Parts: sequence; structure tokens; C-alpha cells
Amino acid sequence: MTGDRAGDYRILHEAALRDYLAGLPDLKALLGGDPASWEITEVGDGNLNLVFIVKGDRGGVAVKQALPYVRLVGESWPLPLSRAHYEYLALSRQAELAPGLVPALLHHNEKLALTVMELLEPHIIMRKGLVAATQYPRFAGDITTFMARTLFFTSDLALSAAEKKEGIAAFAGNHALCKITEDLIFTDPYRIAEQNRWTAPYLDGLAASLRDDMDLHVAISRLKLKFMASPEALLHGDLHTGSIMVTGSQTRVIDPEFAFYGPMGFDVGAVLANLLMAYFASAGHERAPGERAAFEGWVLETVEQVWTAFAGKFLDLWRSHAAGDAFPASLFAGENGAARLEAERQAYMQRLFAETVGFAAAKIIRRIFGLAHNIDFELIEDPKKRAISEARAVRLARAMMVETGAFRTIADVTGAARKLRDWMPEFANG
Amino acid sequence: MTGDRAGDYRILHEAALRDYLAGLPDLKALLGGDPASWEITEVGDGNLNLVFIVKGDRGGVAVKQALPYVRLVGESWPLPLSRAHYEYLALSRQAELAPGLVPALLHHNEKLALTVMELLEPHIIMRKGLVAATQYPRFAGDITTFMARTLFFTSDLALSAAEKKEGIAAFAGNHALCKITEDLIFTDPYRIAEQNRWTAPYLDGLAASLRDDMDLHVAISRLKLKFMASPEALLHGDLHTGSIMVTGSQTRVIDPEFAFYGPMGFDVGAVLANLLMAYFASAGHERAPGERAAFEGWVLETVEQVWTAFAGKFLDLWRSHAAGDAFPASLFAGENGAARLEAERQAYMQRLFAETVGFAAAKIIRRIFGLAHNIDFELIEDPKKRAISEARAVRLARAMMVETGAFRTIADVTGAARKLRDWMPEFANG
Repeated sequence: MTGDRAGDYRILHEAALRDYLAGLPDLKALLGGDPASWEITEVGDGNLNLVFIVKGDRGGVAVKQALPYVRLVGESWPLPLSRAHYEYLALSRQAELAPGLVPALLHHNEKLALTVMELLEPHIIMRKGLVAATQYPRFAGDITTFMARTLFFTSDLALSAAEKKEGIAAFAGNHALCKITEDLIFTDPYRIAEQNRWTAPYLDGLAASLRDDMDLHVAISRLKLKFMASPEALLHGDLHTGSIMVTGSQTRVIDPEFAFYGPMGFDVGAVLANLLMAYFASAGHERAPGERAAFEGWVLETVEQVWTAFAGKFLDLWRSHAAGDAFPASLFAGENGAARLEAERQAYMQRLFAETVGFAAAKIIRRIFGLAHNIDFELIEDPKKRAISEARAVRLARAMMVETGAFRTIADVTGAARKLRDWMPEFANG
Repeated sequence: MTGDRAGDYRILHEAALRDYLAGLPDLKALLGGDPASWEITEVGDGNLNLVFIVKGDRGGVAVKQALPYVRLVGESWPLPLSRAHYEYLALSRQAELAPGLVPALLHHNEKLALTVMELLEPHIIMRKGLVAATQYPRFAGDITTFMARTLFFTSDLALSAAEKKEGIAAFAGNHALCKITEDLIFTDPYRIAEQNRWTAPYLDGLAASLRDDMDLHVAISRLKLKFMASPEALLHGDLHTGSIMVTGSQTRVIDPEFAFYGPMGFDVGAVLANLLMAYFASAGHERAPGERAAFEGWVLETVEQVWTAFAGKFLDLWRSHAAGDAFPASLFAGENGAARLEAERQAYMQRLFAETVGFAAAKIIRRIFGLAHNIDFELIEDPKKRAISEARAVRLARAMMVETGAFRTIADVTGAARKLRDWMPEFANG
């Protein structure tokens, strides 16, 4: 990888980007041919950045440049370029910990807030595949390896307290990105906020009821505090199915610009939430009853596997690689000690499961009432159908957040989801 | 205050210190008279640093210089000088938040790891006063103001998430001092460790039973993880009665070199633990039965007041100064919202109380089986009497750590302590 800290920030549109890449010998060689012939396309469909795909005679790269504002909203919402630095830092760490599950880094320019990565081809954004009812048999295995390894190896179970504190400090400056999450996920959907939107008029009543639901407000506020003040591990921080690129045989996690040290359940919950939303959205996409039944079965099976395999892999790492300062082996010697430590590991995972369930619920509700929505639901053209799918998801999410203790296992979650598959909200009869 | 970053580190003994202070006009004027006539005494009785008292014709100052190793152990245990920087940082913050409850800062030299402070006179180290059965009627009020204000105003309840993360990062480098706590409080007393010691032979059996007590090992390991990974607020980090100087009418908290962002219960628990140890040690100091009964009654009353007044002041600050990102007011509007938020505050304090009880227990056990002991117990000359006092304290501490939930209120703690006042361990009959 080449690096460059020189030059002042400027937005690189097509021509400037072509010149910039042509000036980097490694990348020029990788792309191949005359720079003038390179095909450059802006493809950023995210909320924050410019993303270019550049193709030459020999190969291609993806180029991501941070903008000094939120792309989705515009210059009125400034956002620090330093997020590109944190994304690069997180991506580097993830590449070490979960090799092959993130795009290869080719070049980073801190001043330009620009990163050049391996072009993922023919990968597509997983969410698009889910809308099309595509099954990804490798997904559960890959994403659980990614999460188990990145979370475990950056936690107190694997690191000394000193290394852990250094990690926390290294990402502490990324608070503007954390603030987006704090506002858009943990606060705004539960109050009147200019940027909220939902499928009106069908969900007007539900939106109002969320704003008055004090059980929910207590629960979301506890989750918010946990998000702010529980630096358990280095999180991806935005691990939805739009941050995952897939083929039938490969999985790559992208876009960790929200990375910081936070509660593990936030990442795991994000994956579960987005699968559950794909499940509830599916009914809205079917053209004939039962058409997507196999897909829907796969989604719920995947929800179960994501938790089960994640927990299994995380526990295996804890049993085999516990080099951290937490739960020192010297206090759990002998047969009795080993048994008690194992019981403690199980209790730890049970606590993490409960937090995962809560965070998953928060991620669902924000996608239905907050600023940023999902194509899972958005591509359901009939607003009433869309609202019905959304209302089912919200019904599950509310239970998951307020009655978290009632969900003891992941099968309790998928069981509840299955029961809501054909549930009809009141407005559906109107 | 004057500041100076120049010069390389060197240990300033009497002559060098005299020259150094004579070169600082403000301090020279404050001390008054001919520097050659200044009276300089080394009084450091702590475990880590050099402390000088300097008196001139006009006034006096206290000078603290960090050594590059642990004074109690020697050069074989190096310790970074940077702790003087963190101590200075913490002291500055505490002075803002709890004015009048810490010594005034007069001068700091980062390179020399040296700080000059107001000379506290006629204050004595509180622990010495407690050994002498002195009552401090101002103490509970002052220490609870100190804790409520320093903890609340550095927490997510008072700060934005960004400010909080900046605070955490500013103290993250003080991990060598945290590591001392992690080892000496949360690990070593529960395993064979070279530096452990206890009142042998009487406590040999109890020491061995602690090493085999897996309920205790699980509990201490949970507390250790909380200590490492719950940056709730800026802690003093070493808030025992040796870090508090008192007169009948004044209280000053000193020596915050262990400061970092950690769980609030660790500071509150430290105060309670040291009062409880003073209580159990008292029987060992009496020359006639009942001689110290009034003092002992005052100690337990103070234990109760410390929690009750702390909780009351903390809650009042939360109700009146909640400028932080946690529990946003906008989610708790209306009468119902206000009631739910108040219930949530009470739940928060109940959780904090349970953690306080656990941390207090950890602080007691380390003083009886770990490296650093207390004069409360150490000055009981008869080892058997000392061991009896210590065994009573350990019996309470074990219950507090393992059956934390059984202590619902602070009266449960003082009630249990009172019951153990005359309890006799088995070895007492030997």
C-alpha cells in the first residue's frame, strides 16, 4: 500500500481523480493502459461520501472520498473529514483480524480523506440481493467470523488493559460519527424531529404512540447510555446489509467509518435487525402468495445462525486466546475453577444476547421512523403494503426493546417474527 | 499559578529543591525570607512519591515529585513519571468542580513531574485521626459534595458524548497506575502472589480459603472488568482515608494520581471501605471495653451519611444540571415522562449502590491480604487482636462481594457491620 499525507483537501471529481491516480505508480500499473482511457463512474449511494469505480485495461479500484458534510442532507450538516482516518484505521485493523473479509487497502491520503481499495466485483450490496430474494449460503459463516474475531480481539478478553485504553483513545476523536448514531438511532425516532419520516398516513398513529411510550423511552435511553459509555470492543459501528458486499461465495464488510469502541451487541444487533427487516419486507415484495417462502425461511434460519455461530466462535476464541486482563486464568485454576469460568462465559454471552436484542430493536425502529430508511421497505411501491410490513417489524422491535428478558434464545426472536409474518395492523382493514 | 515545562527530569532532594523554588519569584515571595533559611522536610509516607514540606518566614508549601519507580518497592518496579501530569490534570478539574475541597495548585513542572501545592496546616491525614478515635463532623458533608460534583459533572449525565470521549482519551495514558489497581486490588489477593501478606499465622486459613473461593473469584473478576471497561466518570481512583486531609472544620482530598475514567462506585466504595475498616480496627485499639463506643457509633453513622448524602446530592445535580447526552429531557416530557425519568434515576442509584458495595468489599480485602496495608489495622500491636479485627472486616467484605444483592440499603451494610463487632473467628479460641 502507498500512503500520502501531502496536499490540502479538495474534492476530486472525475478529471482530478484521474490525474491523482495517474500520479501514483503502483495504482497506475494496477489499472493499466492510458489514464485517459480509464473509465470512472461515481457510484456512491450511501449517505455520506463520494465513491468512484475506476477501471483500466488491466484492473479496477474503488475510490472513496469523504465530503466535509453529510451527502444525504447537504452542506448544512457539516461532518469532519477525520472520519476517513478512522475508517482507514478500522479497516486496517479488521484486515489483520478478519483477513479476506474486508476489501484490500491500496492507498490512503489523510489530507484528501481519500482511500483506494480493491474493486469488489462481481459483488453487490447485500441488501439489494435480499430485496431480490437471493439466498447467501456463505453469509452467516463469514459475518460471524468477522464479528467474533474483530470484537473478541479488541476486547478486554484478548487485550491488556493498557492496549485496550490505547485503542479507545485512538478512536475517541470519531465522536461526530457517534453523534449521528446517538441522535438518529437513539433519540429522534422517539420525539418530534424535523428529519423523521414514515409511511404516512398509515403509520401516523404508530409514530405518535412511540413518542408517548415511556417504557420504550426508558429502554432506548438505557441503550443510548450503553452505546456512549461501554467501550467493550472496536465496533464496525454501521454493520447493516448496505455495508456488506456479497457474491454467492464471498462476503466483504465495507464502510467502517462509524468505527469506535462501543458495546459489542450494537454490531451483532445491526446484522440481526437488517435480516429481520428483510424478512418483514419480503411479504411486500411478493407478487404471488408464498412466492418468497423459501427465501423467508432462509432469512430466519440465517438470523438463528448469525447469533448461534457468532456466540460459538466468540466462546471458542475466549477459551483458546484469552490473553487479556479480564477474567485472569490464575483465578480459575483446577477443575472447579474451569467449570466456574465456563459458566461465567455463558453468563457473559447471555448478557450480550440481551443487549444484542435491544440494539437490534433500536436499529429496526430508526429505519421506519427516522431519517435514513432501507430499500428493503422503500422498494415496496404500494405504501399500504409497505406500512403493513413496517408495522410488523415495529411490533417485534417494540417487544424486543421493552420485554427483552422474554427473548431468552434467538429462537424466541425468530419464533416471534414468524408469528407476525401475516399479522394485520388495524389500519390494514381501513 | 506558574508553569514550567523546561529542563530534564532529575530527583530534587533538599538542596536542589531549595534552589529550584528560589528561582520561582511567586513561590519565593510566598515563602518569604532568605531561601537558605527555609525549612525543608521530606514527609512522604505514601507508596509512590517524594513529598516535601517547605516553610519560609512568611508561608509554607507542599512539594510532590513523582519518582520513576514505586517508592514502596524500589527501582525494580518502574512507574512512569507521566502520572504527575494526570494528577495535575485531575487536581485542576477537581478544583473547578469542587472548589475548596482540594489543595490549591501553585506550580507544576511537567518534565520534573513536580507539583507545588498549598500547605495544608494543621490538617492531618484522616486515617491517623481515625486511629486516634477522632470524629470529623464535617467529613460526610464535604466528601459527598466532592464525590457528587466530580463524578456527576464528568459523566454522560452532564457532558455531551463528545466532551466525555475527550475526557476519557485525556486520561487513557494513565494505564500504568490503573494496572497497579487491577493487579493489587482485583487479582493478587485471590491468588498466590509474592507481594501478598497478611497477619500470620492467624489469617493463613482465611487467605487460603479466599484463593479457593470461586464465588469470590467470579465476583472480583466482574468488578475488575467493570473497573477496566466502564468509563462512567473521572475518578479520583485512590480515595481512601490516607488521601484525605482533615481538621475539625475542613476536608481536603489529595493525591489523585490514579485518576482515570472509571466506574463511579469505585470512588464511593473506597470511602465506605475505609470507614468500615476504621470501624473494625477500632476494637483492636481500645484499652478498655467500650472506650471507643462513641467513635464507633459515629463511624457507622458516617458510613450511612456518606451513601445517603452522596446519593441525594448526585440526584439533585441530575435533576437540576442534566446537560449531558444521556437520558435526554425531550424523551421524558409531561407529567408521566417526569415520573418515569425520576424512577429511572432511582434505578440508576440502586445499580450504583450495588456496585459501590462490591467495590468497597474489594478495597477491604486487598488491605488485609494484598501488598499495601492500612495503619488502621497495622497499628494494632497484638497480632492476634489485629487478626480478629481483620477477620471481621473480611467476613463482611466477602458477603458484600458475593451476596451483593442482599445489601439493599446502606443500613443493611452498617447493620451487618454492627453484628460483626464482637464476632469471634475460630482462631480466636486457639
